[in-house]
Amino acid sequence: ARARTLEDILKDKGVITAEDYAEATRNPALAYYQPGKGMTIETADGNYKAQIGGYAQLIYRYSDYDDSARNNKSDFDIRRFKIQLKGHLVNRKFGYKFQGEMAGGFKTEDAYLNYKFGAPLVLQGGQFKPPQARQELTSASRQLFPDRSLANDTFNFGRDQGIQIAGSFKHKLLQYRVGVFNGNGPNISNPDNHLMYNGRIDINPLGSFKMNEAGFPPQKALLNLGASFSYNTVTGDDVGSNFDKDNDVLDKALNLDAMTKAEFTTAYGKDLKVQVMTANINYKWSALTMAGEYYAMNADPEIGEDWDADGYYLQAGYQVLPQTLEVGVRYAAIDSDSKTATRQVSAEFDKSETQVGVNYYFNKHLAKLQTDLTFVQDDLKNNGDDVVFRMQAQFYY
Amino acid sequence: ARARTLEDILKDKGVITAEDYAEATRNPALAYYQPGKGMTIETADGNYKAQIGGYAQLIYRYSDYDDSARNNKSDFDIRRFKIQLKGHLVNRKFGYKFQGEMAGGFKTEDAYLNYKFGAPLVLQGGQFKPPQARQELTSASRQLFPDRSLANDTFNFGRDQGIQIAGSFKHKLLQYRVGVFNGNGPNISNPDNHLMYNGRIDINPLGSFKMNEAGFPPQKALLNLGASFSYNTVTGDDVGSNFDKDNDVLDKALNLDAMTKAEFTTAYGKDLKVQVMTANINYKWSALTMAGEYYAMNADPEIGEDWDADGYYLQAGYQVLPQTLEVGVRYAAIDSDSKTATRQVSAEFDKSETQVGVNYYFNKHLAKLQTDLTFVQDDLKNNGDDVVFRMQAQFYY
Amino acid sequence: ARARTLEDILKDKGVITAEDYAEATRNPALAYYQPGKGMTIETADGNYKAQIGGYAQLIYRYSDYDDSARNNKSDFDIRRFKIQLKGHLVNRKFGYKFQGEMAGGFKTEDAYLNYKFGAPLVLQGGQFKPPQARQELTSASRQLFPDRSLANDTFNFGRDQGIQIAGSFKHKLLQYRVGVFNGNGPNISNPDNHLMYNGRIDINPLGSFKMNEAGFPPQKALLNLGASFSYNTVTGDDVGSNFDKDNDVLDKALNLDAMTKAEFTTAYGKDLKVQVMTANINYKWSALTMAGEYYAMNADPEIGEDWDADGYYLQAGYQVLPQTLEVGVRYAAIDSDSKTATRQVSAEFDKSETQVGVNYYFNKHLAKLQTDLTFVQDDLKNNGDDVVFRMQAQFYY
Repeated sequence: ARARTLEDILKDKGVITAEDYAEATRNPALAYYQPGKGMTIETADGNYKAQIGGYAQLIYRYSDYDDSARNNKSDFDIRRFKIQLKGHLVNRKFGYKFQGEMAGGFKTEDAYLNYKFGAPLVLQGGQFKPPQARQELTSASRQLFPDRSLANDTFNFGRDQGIQIAGSFKHKLLQYRVGVFNGNGPNISNPDNHLMYNGRIDINPLGSFKMNEAGFPPQKALLNLGASFSYNTVTGDDVGSNFDKDNDVLDKALNLDAMTKAEFTTAYGKDLKVQVMTANINYKWSALTMAGEYYAMNADPEIGEDWDADGYYLQAGYQVLPQTLEVGVRYAAIDSDSKTATRQVSAEFDKSETQVGVNYYFNKHLAKLQTDLTFVQDDLKNNGDDVVFRMQAQFYY
Repeated sequence: ARARTLEDILKDKGVITAEDYAEATRNPALAYYQPGKGMTIETADGNYKAQIGGYAQLIYRYSDYDDSARNNKSDFDIRRFKIQLKGHLVNRKFGYKFQGEMAGGFKTEDAYLNYKFGAPLVLQGGQFKPPQARQELTSASRQLFPDRSLANDTFNFGRDQGIQIAGSFKHKLLQYRVGVFNGNGPNISNPDNHLMYNGRIDINPLGSFKMNEAGFPPQKALLNLGASFSYNTVTGDDVGSNFDKDNDVLDKALNLDAMTKAEFTTAYGKDLKVQVMTANINYKWSALTMAGEYYAMNADPEIGEDWDADGYYLQAGYQVLPQTLEVGVRYAAIDSDSKTATRQVSAEFDKSETQVGVNYYFNKHLAKLQTDLTFVQDDLKNNGDDVVFRMQAQFYY
Repeated sequence: ARARTLEDILKDKGVITAEDYAEATRNPALAYYQPGKGMTIETADGNYKAQIGGYAQLIYRYSDYDDSARNNKSDFDIRRFKIQLKGHLVNRKFGYKFQGEMAGGFKTEDAYLNYKFGAPLVLQGGQFKPPQARQELTSASRQLFPDRSLANDTFNFGRDQGIQIAGSFKHKLLQYRVGVFNGNGPNISNPDNHLMYNGRIDINPLGSFKMNEAGFPPQKALLNLGASFSYNTVTGDDVGSNFDKDNDVLDKALNLDAMTKAEFTTAYGKDLKVQVMTANINYKWSALTMAGEYYAMNADPEIGEDWDADGYYLQAGYQVLPQTLEVGVRYAAIDSDSKTATRQVSAEFDKSETQVGVNYYFNKHLAKLQTDLTFVQDDLKNNGDDVVFRMQAQFYY
C-alpha cells in the first residue's frame, strides 16, 4: 500500500480538520499522466496546458491471393504509431493539436489551432479532416474492426488544409461543421485558386453520441443520423503527384495519380467537378452497436458525360463478455458506372468485402487486440477473390 | 478561485510562521509548464533539466500573378510547426538543443551541444545557424512580418554543421561568434575537405538587445550595430543535390542546384570562392522599432572574372495599441551584376519587394495574428510584378 | 542551499514525528527527470508510466583516402539523435518502446509492445532488433569505440518486424530469445510469405552481465558466453529496394541492393538460403573489458554452389583514470570466398581495420567524448588503405 501523505498524517493528528483536508487536496496536480492523453502539464491558473501522448497499432496479416501468379504474403507491420501534442494556451479558448504518424517515417497529420467562442461556434484553421463521412471522422483507434471499411477507404477525403466553423446545440442534439479547404490532401500546396467546400450535420435524438464504433455496456440507447456533402473542382494541375494520396476520392475513386495533365485534359477538358454525398445511421444499446453508411459520388467533366460511383457498409458488433470480448460482422461494397472504353483513364470498380472479427479488450481502446477475416469479391477481375487474416494490437501510451 | 494549499492552511492556523511559509514555498516545482518553452522537468539539484515545446505558424496566401499564363493561387498551408527539446545535463554548463520542423514531414534543424566556460566563452558543436545576418539569426517567430525579407532569403546560409565559440562582454555591450562549418547546409555531409569560416560581432551601446523585431512598450531605447563575414570554397562536388537548399547563398544567390559538376567546371574551373558580408543597424524605442541590413556577396571563380551581388532591407514597425496592434512597412531589394551571356549558369536577379503589414498580439509572440500585402517588382522578367496577400496565425505550445 | 520543505519544517517544529516524516516523504514524485531516461510521469497507482528522452552523438571525421583520385574529407555530422518514448500501461506487465532516429530526417527504429508473464517469458511484437550478435544488440550509446566494428557492420540484421519470446533463468545466469521476422529489415513490408527465424542464448556464469562495452571500476569480474543463429530465405522479390539497408547481411554481405530480380534469378535461381551464426566471449574486471566475437555466413542458392563469408573482432579497453579516461584497441576483419567470375553479382571482400581510441567520461554514458584512429587494409582494392580520425560527443537528454 502507498504511504500516507502529509495531508493524511496532519488530518489523523487533528492538526487540520476534515474540511481543511478536503480543501488542501482539492487542487489537482499540475503534472500528471492521463491514460489516453499521456503526459500532461498545466499552469496553476489553468490557462496553459500541454499533453504528449499517442497510440500505436501493430499488425500481422496473412494474405491468401486468389491469383496464383501472386505470392501469398505473411507480413508483420507497424500499422500506425501516432504522436499527439495538444492542449490550450493563453486561455482555455485557444486550443491546438498536432498529430504525426511515425510508422515508417514521419508524416504530419493534424496541425491546427481553434478558438472556442462557445459551444455553438468553434473556429478552426490548419490541417485536419474536413467534414465528411462519419467512419472517416471516427478515430482509427475507435473502429469496430482493425481498420475502416472498403467503402470508406474509397470515398474519403482524408485530411486537408483549410478553415472551418463547427458547433453544437441543445447538449449535442444537433451538431454541424462547414469549411473550405485546398482540396488536394494534406501537406501539399494548392496549385490553383479552386477550393473544396465541405459540410456535415449530425442529429443525436437520444443525446450526445461520441464517434466510437465499439459498445461497452452498460450504456443507454443512442442514435445518430448524419449526412455530409462536398464539392470540389479538379483541374489538370491537381493530378499525378500534385495531390496527397490520403485523399482517397482523388486517389482511388477517381484514380488521378495514374494520370498526366495532358491525359486529364484530353479526357475531361478544363476541369472535373466532383460531388460526394454521405449519409449514415448509427445505433448503440447496451452491448450492441450497429452502423450503416452510404457514399455517393458524381464526377462531371467539362467535356463528355458525367458518371456516378457509390458504396456502403453495414456492420454490427456485440460484446459477448461486457467490456472484454466483442464479435463483429461487416459487409461493404463499392461500384462505379464508368466501365466504358472511352473512360479508361478513370477508376473502374465493382467489389465487395465480407468481414467477421473478434476483439479482446484489456482496457477499452487503451489496450486491445483485434482480429478479423476478410473475404474479397472483385467482379471486374478474374482471380480477385482474396482472403486476408489480420491480428492487430493497439495501445495508447 | 483556487482552494488554499496545505501551506496556506497551516499558516492561517498559526502552525507555521510567515517565515516558515516563505521557506516552504520557496522551492520551485520540479515539473511545470513554462509559456514559450513548454513542458519542463528538472532534478532537485538543478543539474538536469529538459523542456519540450515549440511553435507553429499556420498561413493563408492569395497570390495574384502578373503573368496571365499562371494560375492565381489560393493556398492554406502549415508554414512552420517546430518541436524543440532543450535543457542542460550533468551540470548547468552543458546545454543542448534539438529543433525539428514537422510541417509536411520532418526536417532536423538544430541539433547541438554546448559548454559554457563563462559568459565570454561558450563552445558549441553540432548543427545550428552559423554566424551571419541578424535577420536570419532572429527566430522566425520574432519577425515584424509573417516571414523574413527578400534580401535575407537570398543571402543567408541557413543552418550548417560545425563548431563555434561565442561570448559576450560588459553585460552584452559586445558580443561575438566565430566558427567553422561544412559549408553546404544542414543534414548533408561534406564531400571534400573545404570548410566555411564565419564570424559576427554585435555592439549594443544602450544595453542588451535581444533578437526580436517587434517592439512592446514600455521599453527603453536600444541600439544594435552588427556585422558578419563569411568565406566559403565551393567546388564541383558541392553542386546539384550535394548541398541543402536551406543555404540560400548556394541555392538562390549562386543557383548551384541547377548545375551539374561538368557545368560547374566548365564555367568556373576548380573552385569558386564566395565571400558574404553583412552589416545592420537596429533601433527600438517604446512602440517604435526600426531595422536596416545590407548584404554583399563576391563570387570569385578559378577561371573568368569575379562578380558581385547585393541586397538590403529597411523596415519600421509601430505599436498603435501597445502590446496589441502593430503596423509595419518594409522595402527590400536584391541585385546581381552577373547579367552577361558568359555567366548564364549563375543566378541573375534585379528585384524588389514593398510590404505593408498589420499584427495583432493576443500575448506577444506566444499567440499572434500577422497579415501583410507584398508588391513585387521584378526588373528581369516581363509580367513579374506579382501581388501577394498573407495572413498567418502563430502560437507557442 | 535549497530551502527546507514543509515536511522538514513540521518535523523540526515537532508537529510530526520522525516516523511521520519518513512516511510522508516515502511516496515518490509522480513527475520527475531520470538521467538516461528523461522526462517521466506516472500514475499514483504505478499502472501507467511514460518517459521521453533519448541520446545524441555529434561527430567530426577526417578521412585520408589512399586513392589519390578521391577528395579527402573533413566532415561535421549529426551521427545519431534518438528520441525514445517508453513506459508501461494498464499494469506493469504491458511495456512499450518507441525509438526514432532524427539525424537528418526521421526514421522509425524500435516500435514494440511486450507482455511480461514473468522473468522466464516475455512476449514481444512489433519492430526491434532480432536475436543476433552481441555487439549489434548492445546500444550504440554503450560501445567502447565511437561506433561498432567492421565485422558487425557487415553481418548484422539491424532491426526487423516480427514477434519473439525471451526470458532469463537463475538471476540471468541463462538468457534466451527466439523469434520470427519479415526478414527484409525495418519499415518495409514482406513481399512474400518467407520469414526469417532467429535465436540467441547467453550464459553469464559470474552473474548478470549487461550489454555495455565500457568498464567502470569498481566492478566485480563478469563473463558472458553467447551464440546466435539465424535462417532466412531470400527471393528475387526481396532484392533492389525491397529491403531496408539497415539489414547489413542483405545490403553488405550479400550486396542485394545492387541486383535486379532478373539478375537474382539468373545467378541464384528461385531463392537463396542464408544462415548466419555468431559466437562471442566478453569479460570485464575492474577497469578492464575484453570482447571477441565471430560471425559466419553461408549462402546457398537454388542453382550453383553455396559460398561462405566470415568476420570477427577482438577488442580491449582499460580505464586508466577510473570512471574518467579509457583507452581501447580493436582489430576486426571480414573475408568472403565468393571471389570468382561466376559470382560477380555477390559481395566480395577481404578487409581489416585496426583501431586505437581514447574515451573521456563526464558522467559514464550520459556525457562522454570518444576519439579514435582507424587504419583500413583492403586487400581487394589498390589504394584502399585509408586512415580515418573520429571525435564524437555523446549525451543523454
